[in-house]
Amino acid sequence: MSAIPQTADTLIHPGWIVPVVPRGAVLEGYSIALTGGRISALLPSDQARAIDAHRVLELPGHALMPGLVNAHGHAAMALLRGYADDQPLMPWLEDHIWPAEAAHVSAEFVRDGVELAIAEMIRSGTTTFSDMYFFPDTCAETAERLGMRCQITFPILDFPTAWARDADEYISKGLALRDAVKHSDLVTVGFGPHAPYTVSEPNLVKVATLAAELDTPIQIHLHETRGEVLLAVEQNGERPLDTLNRLGLLGPRTQCVHMTDLGEQDISLLALSGAHVVHCPQSNMKLASGACPVAKLLDQGVNVALGTDSAASNNDLNLFGELQAAALLAKLAAEDATALPAADALAMATINGARALGLDDQIGSLEVGKQADIIAIDLTQPETQPHYHPLSLLAYACNGSQVSHCWIAGELLLEERRLTRIDLPALSARAAHWRHRIDPKKK
Amino acid sequence: MSAIPQTADTLIHPGWIVPVVPRGAVLEGYSIALTGGRISALLPSDQARAIDAHRVLELPGHALMPGLVNAHGHAAMALLRGYADDQPLMPWLEDHIWPAEAAHVSAEFVRDGVELAIAEMIRSGTTTFSDMYFFPDTCAETAERLGMRCQITFPILDFPTAWARDADEYISKGLALRDAVKHSDLVTVGFGPHAPYTVSEPNLVKVATLAAELDTPIQIHLHETRGEVLLAVEQNGERPLDTLNRLGLLGPRTQCVHMTDLGEQDISLLALSGAHVVHCPQSNMKLASGACPVAKLLDQGVNVALGTDSAASNNDLNLFGELQAAALLAKLAAEDATALPAADALAMATINGARALGLDDQIGSLEVGKQADIIAIDLTQPETQPHYHPLSLLAYACNGSQVSHCWIAGELLLEERRLTRIDLPALSARAAHWRHRIDPKKK
Repeated sequence: MSAIPQTADTLIHPGWIVPVVPRGAVLEGYSIALTGGRISALLPSDQARAIDAHRVLELPGHALMPGLVNAHGHAAMALLRGYADDQPLMPWLEDHIWPAEAAHVSAEFVRDGVELAIAEMIRSGTTTFSDMYFFPDTCAETAERLGMRCQITFPILDFPTAWARDADEYISKGLALRDAVKHSDLVTVGFGPHAPYTVSEPNLVKVATLAAELDTPIQIHLHETRGEVLLAVEQNGERPLDTLNRLGLLGPRTQCVHMTDLGEQDISLLALSGAHVVHCPQSNMKLASGACPVAKLLDQGVNVALGTDSAASNNDLNLFGELQAAALLAKLAAEDATALPAADALAMATINGARALGLDDQIGSLEVGKQADIIAIDLTQPETQPHYHPLSLLAYACNGSQVSHCWIAGELLLEERRLTRIDLPALSARAAHWRHRIDPKKK
Repeated sequence: MSAIPQTADTLIHPGWIVPVVPRGAVLEGYSIALTGGRISALLPSDQARAIDAHRVLELPGHALMPGLVNAHGHAAMALLRGYADDQPLMPWLEDHIWPAEAAHVSAEFVRDGVELAIAEMIRSGTTTFSDMYFFPDTCAETAERLGMRCQITFPILDFPTAWARDADEYISKGLALRDAVKHSDLVTVGFGPHAPYTVSEPNLVKVATLAAELDTPIQIHLHETRGEVLLAVEQNGERPLDTLNRLGLLGPRTQCVHMTDLGEQDISLLALSGAHVVHCPQSNMKLASGACPVAKLLDQGVNVALGTDSAASNNDLNLFGELQAAALLAKLAAEDATALPAADALAMATINGARALGLDDQIGSLEVGKQADIIAIDLTQPETQPHYHPLSLLAYACNGSQVSHCWIAGELLLEERRLTRIDLPALSARAAHWRHRIDPKKK
């Protein structure tokens, strides 16, 4: 039990606090104090009212919980939301997304796309996102400028793009970014080798070596479709997960994204390695890629985080929708309605994400000493009544639009649904500009 | 081409009109006029501006589309939202829902529950709902009082409940309700035999006979789980769909709800009979019941509508979330990303629902002469930008909270997200009252 502080920057009195750790806890009649960007106290409201706070918020009927962690995405692709739909993964990429990217992606595209993505994410309760995209330096700058927390896993590919010529240049530019932001409170940097089918083995070995040397995260698209796995077996005689393992890429720093095609042996290997899985249910469904066996992974002790993937394949960046989809899909896939209950779905969207990103000592739960990355959810509207169990309302009835307030590192970035740092009309004008540039045929 | 009217009650100038019929159409630079509760004109805005309207709404950046049709639910169960979760269908019903209903369901419960459900449905774009629940007379009164359109399929069971003693009383009370509302502009009434496993064959035959005689719809839960189908085969030697067919219950008036377990022969029989399917993807996923083979049904020409089921098994009544879940699940289940494209998902939530309810001459699309059941969706927020394809935004990026206006029979029931006929604070107080009565253990 820590001492009650005498002062605080901000003191919040909500209806309920859902700290996520311990799992399933719901506190009523509790308040939370923020000081210096961190959670300085979590205590009964009658005691909290003795604290002299610079700012006091009364939020009856609201639940407070840790901000959500979107553990996989390509934020700038918000500018390609709805550009092409209802296509399988490879034609969607090869005939639509990649040509549009080749023609239009630039630092300016990334700046505007990331701002659009951050606006949407903050409005739907995400306080940390992971990003893998070109011009990661611009993404980092934009996140810093807007007060958003992010993990950037800079892209690595064997072929040239607007950002780099070859794997060595991707890596050197990425490591330069890592150096440039090493004192940032908001941005962390890791390696983002795109996938085993787009990065050669020698380059994957380089990544493994450097990541171990620098103790840095790696995020990679893996087992996104059965087709990917079958092709790899045909070409290399082994499953992609086994390839990563053979090359020394599979360990507690590794974030494996998608993982729809997994056998028992794959799951055992993941559990043994300590690697994390980032589940992207809506993107996997929309592209008909398959379903990650979440319940089995959790049963084997694998840490499963949650990601939206890009707005071009989702088509939103709303982690409340994603955690609900994850819960429902897990039940269907396991043929078991008890699979991924509400508390576990909420953990997947918060502390599991923090753990995957190696940030669980800083974020992912409401605990004293952690970063004040907090969201308030208004449970007074018709869709979230009556109030039997706040966890059920948060997991199964909220759609993100109930997020009323959002703090990152103690700063209030969303206040009664108003973004404090983003000029929405100006942002909309820039989104419209890109839409006309990318698809000029339309009026 | 109809003549341009000189006057109108209401004239709306939106950014886009999505009439749903013809399938996939998007009109830009068009306006819509409402007179006497009906759509009186749909024409280019420059011509529309000559109309002398009592009220003119400028809605740039908004899309207009037909109000959504929620073709299956139990509205009053909104009061049991989140009462019990993460349970399989039968334990969930037998150990939680049915005991709570036995103890608490009354006309007052239904009045308050239906009002809560209607508040949520209007706020998320539903203008017509189908209901199967006790005290259907109270549901009808509540819908009329609040200006909401609904189909009531009054419940029929072999066992007594708070509303009726036996099948004959369910039927006679239901038919009395049908008589009482026969001049209603908003309420239609049909038969709601609960399921083949809760209504005996003689009583199902009575329903078939009366429904044919009165030319009245029938809605029934059918093939909700594989277990239901297996048990029926064991007990009766045939699949439930075959039982309905043998008893004369399967035809163009029949609305079969759930239908997760369907073989090729079932699908052929459905197509041949002209019966409708009401797909409830989120409820089916949450209860791990299974997945309706939507793409196959549509390929065979079966009309597939969409329903939320109750808020106790969903846990919302938001048809935008449901149509998105339907589209994503169809792609996953068919292993085909082209399955159920955006335009078809939007049709499923509108005109297909109208067709299932036998109301497609009145609602389900924006066509001159149809009822003015219309919603406006604000596409100016970050989550719905940029604007490549409005259909994609409506199907894949909206979550219902973008619904800004809602008209039913020409009456404005939601204006800039404010409900015009419902007192939300008073409704919340009644929801809280029921919560304390139903679960008094909690504070």
